[in-house]
Amino acid sequence: MTRISELGEKKVIETIMECLDKMPDVPVPFGDDVSAVDFDSDTLAVVKTDMLVGKTDVPPGMSLRQAARKAVVMNISDFAAKGVKPLVLLVALGLPRSFTEEDIRQIGLGLNEGAREYDAYVIGGDTNEASDLVISCSLLGTCDKHTLVRRTGARPGDLIAVTGHFGKTASGLKILLEGLSAPQEIKKTLTEAVLMPKARLREGLALAQTGALTASIDSSDGLAWSLHELSDASNVGFIIDRIPTAPEVEEFAEKCGLDPMELGLYGGEEYELITTVEPALWGAASSAAIELQTPLTKIGRATEEKELKLEVNGRTRPIERKGWEHFTTLASSFSS
Amino acid sequence: MTRISELGEKKVIETIMECLDKMPDVPVPFGDDVSAVDFDSDTLAVVKTDMLVGKTDVPPGMSLRQAARKAVVMNISDFAAKGVKPLVLLVALGLPRSFTEEDIRQIGLGLNEGAREYDAYVIGGDTNEASDLVISCSLLGTCDKHTLVRRTGARPGDLIAVTGHFGKTASGLKILLEGLSAPQEIKKTLTEAVLMPKARLREGLALAQTGALTASIDSSDGLAWSLHELSDASNVGFIIDRIPTAPEVEEFAEKCGLDPMELGLYGGEEYELITTVEPALWGAASSAAIELQTPLTKIGRATEEKELKLEVNGRTRPIERKGWEHFTTLASSFSS
Repeated sequence: MTRISELGEKKVIETIMECLDKMPDVPVPFGDDVSAVDFDSDTLAVVKTDMLVGKTDVPPGMSLRQAARKAVVMNISDFAAKGVKPLVLLVALGLPRSFTEEDIRQIGLGLNEGAREYDAYVIGGDTNEASDLVISCSLLGTCDKHTLVRRTGARPGDLIAVTGHFGKTASGLKILLEGLSAPQEIKKTLTEAVLMPKARLREGLALAQTGALTASIDSSDGLAWSLHELSDASNVGFIIDRIPTAPEVEEFAEKCGLDPMELGLYGGEEYELITTVEPALWGAASSAAIELQTPLTKIGRATEEKELKLEVNGRTRPIERKGWEHFTTLASSFSS
Repeated sequence: MTRISELGEKKVIETIMECLDKMPDVPVPFGDDVSAVDFDSDTLAVVKTDMLVGKTDVPPGMSLRQAARKAVVMNISDFAAKGVKPLVLLVALGLPRSFTEEDIRQIGLGLNEGAREYDAYVIGGDTNEASDLVISCSLLGTCDKHTLVRRTGARPGDLIAVTGHFGKTASGLKILLEGLSAPQEIKKTLTEAVLMPKARLREGLALAQTGALTASIDSSDGLAWSLHELSDASNVGFIIDRIPTAPEVEEFAEKCGLDPMELGLYGGEEYELITTVEPALWGAASSAAIELQTPLTKIGRATEEKELKLEVNGRTRPIERKGWEHFTTLASSFSS
């Protein structure tokens, strides 16, 4: 009998999906970041659930308040990638018996903080006793049917663009989990990226509104892994010619003898947006990002040939389907 | 520092609620069984989350498939009590590493079974590694604003009516957890009530449609506890003159020297509906139940004096705020 520790998350999700009757005419295809049902002829009710487990999702150095906030932010980020505004949040908690009243208060504060940063409210939940800390958030929002950006729409020739800079969380996790050292002036930036992640909600909403995006995903599983997901869903390949790594990542990589490109590609817990853009509408997407003072960088293009390649400095190498492996062993979403 | 094991669920929920910004103009009052937001001028989007934890919610003798099904049914039951039809379900799973592929399949089958029995679909989710089995379900449905039955509407003089018969799960839990024995011909009925609970969805929808209900709750925390909740929310008392216990419960109680009324009052995990009915509309409520061939029994009336009393056989005694204590130590819902 194969145990799930050997099965891997893909197979676990497949096994569950095989058991589920498929709902006819779901407006968001199976396997996307959010689920939705038709509310009326123009509007979708959009929902998402994502669970944070203390053992696998809370690195050393992260407070309970930060963990609770992160549990909210990781859900918000998926809405951001789809261009959907979150309205309300439900939270189911599994709490170890040893937790104190102050622990509970810190969790409450973190949940509220995560929601209010994005104009959402926690309006209900459920508390239980459990061995691990478990924070299971469910988000609800509504969205114009034509605005929601799926994973499936990328076409050969589309540009790929990302918000922000990559590699900070991979570097931060190396500091927090593996004890690597970094100069004080960059250490805070790198660890804060892990401890206080931000979802690109304003950017996701504004970009979706332009109509320029053909597909979108967040980079929560790492840039490489998320590109593979997008590639699978849209049935296109990608040639990537640039990984916009943060200057702090460059410095950290140099000090530690690491490859900054590897930190940028194979990280995780990083909540940037990865979008494909119709080339003729690049100007609209770019303007929307400029208005928000957020970097939106073209990093390559979609190809008919379904391969993922990195072409930098005249060298081509494959982009592997891997992410941050030591931290989260089994954590992924499914939709049916 | 007080630990939550001493704090109790009420205080845990209070502590979290104190941290949350209150959403203005929520259509369902804080503390009800479901949460809702206005979708349009007539329609509510209704949501609910409830977590099942292996350690506290799965008694010996319950299979994984039954546990997964129960995780769905307990959410459906809350929708039933509010008169809201569930549409779709999201499921976040915490899975112990030792689980096998077949275990996962049994969970998938149970989830699907629970949803499809009530015409809902599982349309998304999330899988994680955790120490306990955790099944966190979130339900979404829509509802006409005027149909939803809150906890808060009971008025002095209203009738109290319940569906079905009570005491089966309390008896079943005594068999499964405490090893009490029961004659074979009733044992199955009593344990099945625990292992394969049914939500009164058809009844809840039909009763809400009549417009006869002033308040409603399910009996998942036991009849007594749920009556106290309803009393608190509506600020009325109740005089109960009848506890409709199942014949199997009478027999079991007699064999084991137990009080059948105690089994009916102080149980839990029993998913009947407890409703208050406007006396002039009793006929409509009663007809709706008869049409579904479901017993709907008047068990008493709401009073201005905020006390809960049991008046049977000429004897009056207080109804205590207690439920099944040995099984679930900390499991409750909050809404804000």
